[in-house]
Amino acid sequence: MASTQRTEIELPAAFDAHVHLRDGDMAELVARTIRMGGVNQVYVMPNLVPPITSVQQCLAYRARLQAIEPKVEYIMSLYLHEDITPEVIREAKQAGIMGVKSYPAGVTTNSSSGVIDYETFYPVFSEMEKQDMVLNLHGEVPSTPRHAHTSTTTTENGSGAAITILNAEHAFIPTLLNLHSRFPRLRIILEHCSTASALAAVTSCGPTVAGTITAHHLSLVIDDWAGDPFSFCKPVAKTPEDRDSLLKAVVRGQGRFFLGTDSAPHPRSAKRGADRVAAGVFSQPYALGYVLDALDAGVRRGVLGGDEVGQEVLEGFFGGWGRAFYGIRDKSGERVLLTKDGVKVLDLLEGKGGVEVVPFRKGEETWSVQWK
Amino acid sequence: MASTQRTEIELPAAFDAHVHLRDGDMAELVARTIRMGGVNQVYVMPNLVPPITSVQQCLAYRARLQAIEPKVEYIMSLYLHEDITPEVIREAKQAGIMGVKSYPAGVTTNSSSGVIDYETFYPVFSEMEKQDMVLNLHGEVPSTPRHAHTSTTTTENGSGAAITILNAEHAFIPTLLNLHSRFPRLRIILEHCSTASALAAVTSCGPTVAGTITAHHLSLVIDDWAGDPFSFCKPVAKTPEDRDSLLKAVVRGQGRFFLGTDSAPHPRSAKRGADRVAAGVFSQPYALGYVLDALDAGVRRGVLGGDEVGQEVLEGFFGGWGRAFYGIRDKSGERVLLTKDGVKVLDLLEGKGGVEVVPFRKGEETWSVQWK
Repeated sequence: MASTQRTEIELPAAFDAHVHLRDGDMAELVARTIRMGGVNQVYVMPNLVPPITSVQQCLAYRARLQAIEPKVEYIMSLYLHEDITPEVIREAKQAGIMGVKSYPAGVTTNSSSGVIDYETFYPVFSEMEKQDMVLNLHGEVPSTPRHAHTSTTTTENGSGAAITILNAEHAFIPTLLNLHSRFPRLRIILEHCSTASALAAVTSCGPTVAGTITAHHLSLVIDDWAGDPFSFCKPVAKTPEDRDSLLKAVVRGQGRFFLGTDSAPHPRSAKRGADRVAAGVFSQPYALGYVLDALDAGVRRGVLGGDEVGQEVLEGFFGGWGRAFYGIRDKSGERVLLTKDGVKVLDLLEGKGGVEVVPFRKGEETWSVQWK
Repeated sequence: MASTQRTEIELPAAFDAHVHLRDGDMAELVARTIRMGGVNQVYVMPNLVPPITSVQQCLAYRARLQAIEPKVEYIMSLYLHEDITPEVIREAKQAGIMGVKSYPAGVTTNSSSGVIDYETFYPVFSEMEKQDMVLNLHGEVPSTPRHAHTSTTTTENGSGAAITILNAEHAFIPTLLNLHSRFPRLRIILEHCSTASALAAVTSCGPTVAGTITAHHLSLVIDDWAGDPFSFCKPVAKTPEDRDSLLKAVVRGQGRFFLGTDSAPHPRSAKRGADRVAAGVFSQPYALGYVLDALDAGVRRGVLGGDEVGQEVLEGFFGGWGRAFYGIRDKSGERVLLTKDGVKVLDLLEGKGGVEVVPFRKGEETWSVQWK
């Protein structure tokens, strides 16, 4: 049956390979929405304030999350930082921590402690390779500073163009390729791929390299976030051609790309306050529904064939391929039933301490989730 | 003296060739800020709600503006629309209306009544050519609708790419060139040029075609508006290379480009409300200061030579070139003294009826204006 005619789909509970759960009152709200979206395993980002750079911090954070929502498995990561040494990597491995997330300094939310020079971390990557841990890359180069001259002779990326949020991901590709060639057995994930060129770069690498794709990048283009703070994230959504290449990667990517929502909640005030708009789309509560809607829209536009979006692809993208890459299983055997029954995305989620978060596509129709 | 060392400049009062003054309480506030910015003649956009499509409406609007701020000369325009006939053009010419503004339908604020098919208006353009009136073009093609297929075989612009706010201006260039070749004596202004390719297109045309450049496009790039609703406008600010080409066009454009701020006030709530962010940057109260700041920054970055930003260029860009193109004079002989004395942009301007507008670059230092 064509994807767009389907109104009921049963699937194994999903693995979301890239989530921001925050801490404190925000975590209380957000962790409870994981299962709402059809997900029971998540790979948790370490960009708290301060960032998670020790095994002890990491395990304490996992315990806090487990206390909030025990029916989710939290796969944990550390924040790549000068505090991370080969010794910390060995200790992390022993403690069951699966990976290390690298943020280029200053690129996105809570990345001010991020990486400036990857070479410094080669001993860490080498130990990660030995310990079979995963390196999660935020694959964007920082934008050229406002005061810099932008002539072809002085820019950093060799292509002659200044770096902006538009070409930041493309400009990161040489770094990905270099890391893969130096550490060919190191498992690397290029997170939240947003461009056709990022997809092609991942595909050009060996099987130790994979990519995650968010729910929102499967539907958004630049016009959508230009006037809508709640669709603004880093990396920014790009052109319709990029979006369509992401849709194709879901179904034709041979398992190299899987779901990582990069769901990134911000208080409503940080999206609508007096100052700069915080980057991040909150997609956790409707993670699978958003993806199904985007795939259906892709079929309607003729980008995807209706018969391409079958059970095998959905089971793979929503969990099978990600779990295989991470080497994890869902021992619960839980399944979810997704139904297109007219349910609408909530306008607002409210938690303790006055926390308010606006979900992606508020007020629009999506799929409801029932646990079996 | 290098532009960045200068702290005092005396100039003839300026002509702003593209302003949005709105109506009612908003106009009461905004029209009073024109002279604040060092300007005493303005070319007024007709995109009220409903748009100004008759001579009578237009003259009544001018009278309302004159009543608010009589020490400004308001050069008026009509909104290109099915109500505009060759007869209306003749009547408009007699009434002293200088031009007609064309908005592609749906591209920006209050453009829902805009143009879909330019060919329909060839008789109007022909009459405008005869009457020596000015055609003001908002040079953007509407974005490809969300539901459209974006493969190379089905898009409108021939380049194979779907239209987004990024390539919308570039995709409009064939329309500009076609209109110029069909109506070579028709004076055409490509408003608010935002890309190097738009500048090149204007330059490639004969002397009947000119371009306006805003204050904000001389400093902003995509990264600036991505997280800041108060820097978000249509056309959107593009790459650093585009911005630098605009700076160069100011000083090296041989008078083909002149100031049209496209100052576009919106109530603060429309920039920070619950819904989509309104497009428009409010630059009227500091129009000349913003341009001087952007030129100075261009000199500091090495994009412009300090000696390029001389008295002749400033007098030309701020008034001389625009007045020459429109064939108008400033009979007042007024002059303004701009001083870099540490004055800061107001955080908010408040008017009657609870009107609140946030100016561009609130809280930052700029130049103060004294009338002589």
